[in-house]
Amino acid sequence: MNYKIMLKIHAWILLIESVLMVPPLIISMCMHESRNVFGFLLTIIITFALATIFGIISRDAKAKFYAREGFVCVGMAWIVMCLLGALPFFFSGTIPHYVDAFFETVSGFTTTGSSILNEVEHLGKGMLWWRSFSHWVGGMGVLVFFLAIIPVSGSGGFSLHILRAESTGPAVGKSTPKMRETAAALYIIYIGLTVLDFIFLLIGKMKVFDAACIAFGTAGTGGFTVLNTGFATYTPFAINVTTVFMLLFGVNFSIYFMLLFKRVWSAIKNEELICYVVIVLCSTLFFAINIYQKTAQTMHLNETIMHSAFQVGALITTTGYATADFAQWPAFSQAVALVLMMIGACAGSTGGGMKIARVMLLFKSLKRNAHKLNKPSEIRVVKFNRQKVSEQTIANVNAYLAAYVLLIVISFLIVSLDKANYSVTSNLSAVISTFNNIGPALDQIGPMSNFSGYSALSKIVFSVDMLFGRLEIFPILMLLLPHTYKKH
Amino acid sequence: MNYKIMLKIHAWILLIESVLMVPPLIISMCMHESRNVFGFLLTIIITFALATIFGIISRDAKAKFYAREGFVCVGMAWIVMCLLGALPFFFSGTIPHYVDAFFETVSGFTTTGSSILNEVEHLGKGMLWWRSFSHWVGGMGVLVFFLAIIPVSGSGGFSLHILRAESTGPAVGKSTPKMRETAAALYIIYIGLTVLDFIFLLIGKMKVFDAACIAFGTAGTGGFTVLNTGFATYTPFAINVTTVFMLLFGVNFSIYFMLLFKRVWSAIKNEELICYVVIVLCSTLFFAINIYQKTAQTMHLNETIMHSAFQVGALITTTGYATADFAQWPAFSQAVALVLMMIGACAGSTGGGMKIARVMLLFKSLKRNAHKLNKPSEIRVVKFNRQKVSEQTIANVNAYLAAYVLLIVISFLIVSLDKANYSVTSNLSAVISTFNNIGPALDQIGPMSNFSGYSALSKIVFSVDMLFGRLEIFPILMLLLPHTYKKH
Repeated sequence: MNYKIMLKIHAWILLIESVLMVPPLIISMCMHESRNVFGFLLTIIITFALATIFGIISRDAKAKFYAREGFVCVGMAWIVMCLLGALPFFFSGTIPHYVDAFFETVSGFTTTGSSILNEVEHLGKGMLWWRSFSHWVGGMGVLVFFLAIIPVSGSGGFSLHILRAESTGPAVGKSTPKMRETAAALYIIYIGLTVLDFIFLLIGKMKVFDAACIAFGTAGTGGFTVLNTGFATYTPFAINVTTVFMLLFGVNFSIYFMLLFKRVWSAIKNEELICYVVIVLCSTLFFAINIYQKTAQTMHLNETIMHSAFQVGALITTTGYATADFAQWPAFSQAVALVLMMIGACAGSTGGGMKIARVMLLFKSLKRNAHKLNKPSEIRVVKFNRQKVSEQTIANVNAYLAAYVLLIVISFLIVSLDKANYSVTSNLSAVISTFNNIGPALDQIGPMSNFSGYSALSKIVFSVDMLFGRLEIFPILMLLLPHTYKKH
Repeated sequence: MNYKIMLKIHAWILLIESVLMVPPLIISMCMHESRNVFGFLLTIIITFALATIFGIISRDAKAKFYAREGFVCVGMAWIVMCLLGALPFFFSGTIPHYVDAFFETVSGFTTTGSSILNEVEHLGKGMLWWRSFSHWVGGMGVLVFFLAIIPVSGSGGFSLHILRAESTGPAVGKSTPKMRETAAALYIIYIGLTVLDFIFLLIGKMKVFDAACIAFGTAGTGGFTVLNTGFATYTPFAINVTTVFMLLFGVNFSIYFMLLFKRVWSAIKNEELICYVVIVLCSTLFFAINIYQKTAQTMHLNETIMHSAFQVGALITTTGYATADFAQWPAFSQAVALVLMMIGACAGSTGGGMKIARVMLLFKSLKRNAHKLNKPSEIRVVKFNRQKVSEQTIANVNAYLAAYVLLIVISFLIVSLDKANYSVTSNLSAVISTFNNIGPALDQIGPMSNFSGYSALSKIVFSVDMLFGRLEIFPILMLLLPHTYKKH
């Protein structure tokens, strides 16, 4: 294991993080939030100091770098980032317990949006900015950002491993030699869409600060808001704008590449995109019908559709904004909600969940296996977007599902031990919600409630689940396996 | 597709079924249950007539038989068996709606033990016998029985395919040429253990009829009882005897083979058996501690342990007897219950669920994949009972999990549409319970409740899930795939 290069990368990450804390520091100063100023200042000093030390130790690092280093490095970097990112909340005293601050920060960077706060406005503008901005940073991935802006010494394989480990979905076609260009292009698209969202929200007469934070939350498909009332008090225009942009950020960014390079047709023919659109339309329809039956007296049809579309967007992209308490919805809507949570958005998007591409591959390989039973002799290949899928990819997807199920079951068991003694639905949906980076869960942990009732142990389990979900299991799993650190 | 041989097998199956209905007919006569006598008599006539017709049509059937026929034949035979097995309930008017009668029969043959009856005693002895006996027949599999008693014309491959399709677990080592002997030996062990259970229950002063029915239910790990009070009113002795035998029937029968042939050591070293024992002991301990904390005042420790052990046995072997309403247990116990339901018993047992061997293989292949990420070059094989597991087996296990998850999700969605509008926990646990052939579920469908509240559609979905579970997905899945019937 090449520890020095990993330390070097960490030095860069911490440097970036300390810089990212400057804007909220300035905001806190302007708003005269003295305790926030103190919190950010102290954290920036610590982070910068650590960065410098790491940098000095690792100055003679060789760029020898394998897949293993890529995974471990990404997993490690995210944990360190969250540990330090939690300090402002803790130092400022806005979140008195460090575990809570850590949970909140992990929830931010992993774009989950689960919270332990009963009300958020008391945090002050500076903290609210940092909280929402962490969504934006985590959405596209901080190491991708690092690749985009820092000239990486050594081979492109180096960047490839990191990009592989941090980006989402089963097999992201990122085997181009121009890693830096790819990373840069990703961020340019990402920034562009975010700015667009921000402008639209301003047109809708949303306050500048709110518009910025909501845009961050939407871009990262995170879900943190800046008002105690969450999203409920925003205008229908803001709701519809957010619906559209949530869904846009749930699309595989390679689609936007294609569009940029005028390959419109291959973009439109993308199987995952088609499936994504179909799921969104169908579940919006299901929600609307199912809810309208119950609320016909109290709610207009177009209002029902608006809320349904918003909720579908919030659930499938795992953003987790809520305009309605879907924990109170009829059984079928709750079931659909739970399924949307698990499927998640497209591969290579900022959304969480299992990713549609994975679910599709599972279906395809299943169909293939059934055929195999028919004609054991016949060899059939699984195709995706009219291209042959390697058996290795299929094996990986199945392994992912296995890991996914096993880890959710284990987390569910630990969380069920909690003294709070929440219902089975609450515990299970809370685990699923955090693991898939959604935010709100069902029953007692519904969108109008929060995670504050859980014990420190449960909060740590949820935090780990959020990291598992965002980094798609293996980077974190490998951190935990002793075998990883063996010499070979 | 060789339809004639399939018809021939169906002829035999129906003949067997009509014969199996004679004992309950006699019981009904002795008890003067006129409507039951009518129900059985009419059904026997119909079944026998069909058997004769099928026999005549298929008298010149060739024994040409492939895996495909094996799967389809088993799937088909089970459905036909259930369709006819439901008739006595329907004709006798003891279960007025045919869908309910079908649900109850499927639940019987698949050894699920879910019921739509609020109280069972009104069925009369004849029906109660048929209901419990269906567990016993379904437990080991009627086609295995057929193989054991009828001289099969043609190749042993014929029997192999059927045995493969009907017996449980990932890769049952049933590739011996002596299929008939294997099938016969299985049934001899099965009958022996059942008789032993029956005798012990009699020693415990249980009524002969009750003892027989409970023994059938225990042997098939089904769960139907003969009293409205279920298992609650039986003596602690009967409870403990049943606990032991449930656990014995949850063991892979090949273990008993080994013991018969004095291969004690290899039996004891069996990885699955060890895992099974460990799970049983640990979860009994968890239950006892967790429940004792809540019920210390009302229940003695030894009583708590007795109920805990019984419930663990009932859950992991998917028998589904209940002495306590575990739907009222603390969150952790409910979580453990849910997990035990899903894991299920050993491969090659009469128990349901995913089977411990499968879960172990999932863990092992997952560990292997994590190592692979470390050293992509290195080739590692998965071992089970100190033998190399083929990549095909691992692929099949993963495919099984994928099918399992997808089918449960689909069923969950359909059932959630039910007008009854049960809670998410109820619907999800009901699907899991039926798919894993357990019987009772959680929340509103807990052990003190039943499935009568669901609509006909939901009951059919549950019935299909029970068949999916008992036949381990693929036989039923292939029935539903048009590709199966294509000529090639």
